[in-house]
Amino acid sequence: MSHVPLDPETARKVTSSLNYRFEIGGEPLVIAIAQDAENGDVLMTAFANEEAVYRTLTTGYAHYWSTSRREVWKKGEESGHVQRVVEVRVDCDKDAVLYVVEQEGGACHTGYRSCFYRRVTRDGSFEVVMDRVFNPDEVYR
Amino acid sequence: MSHVPLDPETARKVTSSLNYRFEIGGEPLVIAIAQDAENGDVLMTAFANEEAVYRTLTTGYAHYWSTSRREVWKKGEESGHVQRVVEVRVDCDKDAVLYVVEQEGGACHTGYRSCFYRRVTRDGSFEVVMDRVFNPDEVYR
Repeated sequence: MSHVPLDPETARKVTSSLNYRFEIGGEPLVIAIAQDAENGDVLMTAFANEEAVYRTLTTGYAHYWSTSRREVWKKGEESGHVQRVVEVRVDCDKDAVLYVVEQEGGACHTGYRSCFYRRVTRDGSFEVVMDRVFNPDEVYR
Repeated sequence: MSHVPLDPETARKVTSSLNYRFEIGGEPLVIAIAQDAENGDVLMTAFANEEAVYRTLTTGYAHYWSTSRREVWKKGEESGHVQRVVEVRVDCDKDAVLYVVEQEGGACHTGYRSCFYRRVTRDGSFEVVMDRVFNPDEVYR
């Protein structure tokens, strides 16, 4: 069962109650994490301003704030690898949100399902722990 | 099998390669997420500076950077609810780390196993979706 989307008024009530306490480039933000609804894998993390959380809640698709481009972006807008949000969790002090999502394709622009596709090994190298699910050269042109 | 701790030199090689690109209060940071090794639950999120990641890798216990107190802190230092790190993942652009941990007690100071103990419902309220695992009044005095 999906707990989103919310109607605009209800969504605004939720977004206005969050604590956008991380200011980066002058923008008040919360941390946003996407978790795979299928297997619990952490797919990616980024930031969200109030508008990004609002669009997530009202559309049912994950939106974030880009600290480099300084704009709200919909995940998968370009690649088609959207995230359908089935549940939004908030943390204890309301400065972080967890999007539980159905991930289309892969979350990572490098072609992996998750951006956290490498682990640190004892010798200090980064070991890839999953297979690519798409070819980034074909998806991002 | 645990992939940490690392020896100091190897740990420094790893930490110096990360991209601490989020500057909050003048401190260069990465996003840090703790995930329960047992069931994949996202337990909490915070920030880490290079020293916090270094101490995590060399001690095997999760450390973070407090943006309010402006200091490195070991999770569970006061409460005893430490996080033994079994694996550290890094994301594609190396500005986020995922600590896969064995959580002692609960990660949240409110008494829940995870800080993300509430979900947003269709009517805009926050519904608690798990039970408390400890009484915060007895742990945090």
